[in-house]
Amino acid sequence: MKPSSEDEAAPAGGPWEECFEAAVQLALRAGQIIKKALSEEKRVSTKTSAADLVTETDHLVEDLIISELQKKFPSHRFIAEESAAAGAKCVLTPSPTWIVDPIDGTCNFVHRFPTVAVSIGFAVDQELEFGVIYHCTEERLYTGQRGRGAFCNGQRLQVSGETDISKALVLTEIGPRRDPATLKLFLSNMERLLHAKAHGVRVIGSSTLALCLLASGAADAYYQFGLHCWDLAAATVIIREAGGIVMDTSGGPLDLMSCRVVAAGTREMATLIAQALQTINYGRDDEK
Amino acid sequence: MKPSSEDEAAPAGGPWEECFEAAVQLALRAGQIIKKALSEEKRVSTKTSAADLVTETDHLVEDLIISELQKKFPSHRFIAEESAAAGAKCVLTPSPTWIVDPIDGTCNFVHRFPTVAVSIGFAVDQELEFGVIYHCTEERLYTGQRGRGAFCNGQRLQVSGETDISKALVLTEIGPRRDPATLKLFLSNMERLLHAKAHGVRVIGSSTLALCLLASGAADAYYQFGLHCWDLAAATVIIREAGGIVMDTSGGPLDLMSCRVVAAGTREMATLIAQALQTINYGRDDEK
Repeated sequence: MKPSSEDEAAPAGGPWEECFEAAVQLALRAGQIIKKALSEEKRVSTKTSAADLVTETDHLVEDLIISELQKKFPSHRFIAEESAAAGAKCVLTPSPTWIVDPIDGTCNFVHRFPTVAVSIGFAVDQELEFGVIYHCTEERLYTGQRGRGAFCNGQRLQVSGETDISKALVLTEIGPRRDPATLKLFLSNMERLLHAKAHGVRVIGSSTLALCLLASGAADAYYQFGLHCWDLAAATVIIREAGGIVMDTSGGPLDLMSCRVVAAGTREMATLIAQALQTINYGRDDEK
Repeated sequence: MKPSSEDEAAPAGGPWEECFEAAVQLALRAGQIIKKALSEEKRVSTKTSAADLVTETDHLVEDLIISELQKKFPSHRFIAEESAAAGAKCVLTPSPTWIVDPIDGTCNFVHRFPTVAVSIGFAVDQELEFGVIYHCTEERLYTGQRGRGAFCNGQRLQVSGETDISKALVLTEIGPRRDPATLKLFLSNMERLLHAKAHGVRVIGSSTLALCLLASGAADAYYQFGLHCWDLAAATVIIREAGGIVMDTSGGPLDLMSCRVVAAGTREMATLIAQALQTINYGRDDEK
């Protein structure tokens, strides 16, 4: 099923409709660039570690998305992965703000592992308004607009209603830091969930797409330490609009800049997962 | 891209061509049943543990595949997941033998996590002749015939040439046993690979599809303890025909019945992975 903006089943209108439509068109365009790049040789440079790779395509796609949006919406602000890596501050002000991950799953991308997405989130008054995520190799367009539901290629998304951890499929990601102490905590968290008899734990290499799978009901919970606001912003709207919960790993409200998250189909499940986890401190996106 | 037997780029002919064609047709038929079931409610019964779920569709698909093959090839033998769970012996004799996993990724299937495949392998004189694997939700048909290459929807597959573990994307699966001692070994093996600075470790919940991703070059290595001959048989032909290596975790030749495997794009990578691993003893398929 090839997605297009026509597939969207959400009703027309809303104050940010023009922005949403622009995000959908740019996500589809960016997806074509990524698909093409996946069929070509890639030159890779390293960012902070070998596990957190960055490629020319990452920069190319981010530049495309930001320059096109700046032309259409010159007063808007931007938070984006490659700009942040180059030193730009991640500050969410009340201004309309685009939060962009040009390629989520960069390590997958480098290996041509086909779990790679473009993620475009949008916030106004520090509240997330919509999210657009395009899983380009599978041509799946996930969208969510506040108060108007979440969709994948026009089909409404609905989270799982599971509340029992022993019946849960749980998603997580390893995170960029690989020092022995961080790895111990990562593995210990996985062990705690498997001891709690979770059906399984999956690691697919894309936070954004893992969160979309959660939104579609294909998994019951997700947690991660070491992800960034651009991994979370778009997916958070999609999960909430699919009926799910996105919260801090402390059990409190989500803090988009805290580099940690628990998400689940139900509040009970999210709370159980949060209680099982030990914290891995990755600092904050807005203090880097 | 919708696969069909017409997509196959392998040349016609060969002594087991009729069997291969039957496998392709049955994998596609089985895939349609699985896709339909994924859109319906499922009644689930447990097999040996909650982590190793079995569903009506598993039984239905296995019965279909075996009954159709028995009609066409009445002298052939069968080794199949659900029959083995019901007590049938797994013995690979010199007779032509079909090795079938009706739904690889049963836990994924139960959760509607879209990484689910049908796997049909075929051996003669205890040598694997061909493998057919259908990733039904993505409509990807993987095939390999001994001496004639491996393909996905008609495109030839080629493994990665990577020999450096610090540049590797590695796939594994948790395995069905979840007692504390087994989990410790599983997590310790993952820790060893991450300490060796593997780019990443992925866990997708289907051994068969992980091995297909390896065959396509999207990952550099795979290892697992606790998988079965029906998870391995078809994928082994596909990986070998894509230029890759499938071996025992001891570093010796593959033993299809040993419930353990290392596979990689290169012998160097497979050997490095095998050397890094601690053994988890799951017994043998032919001694259960």
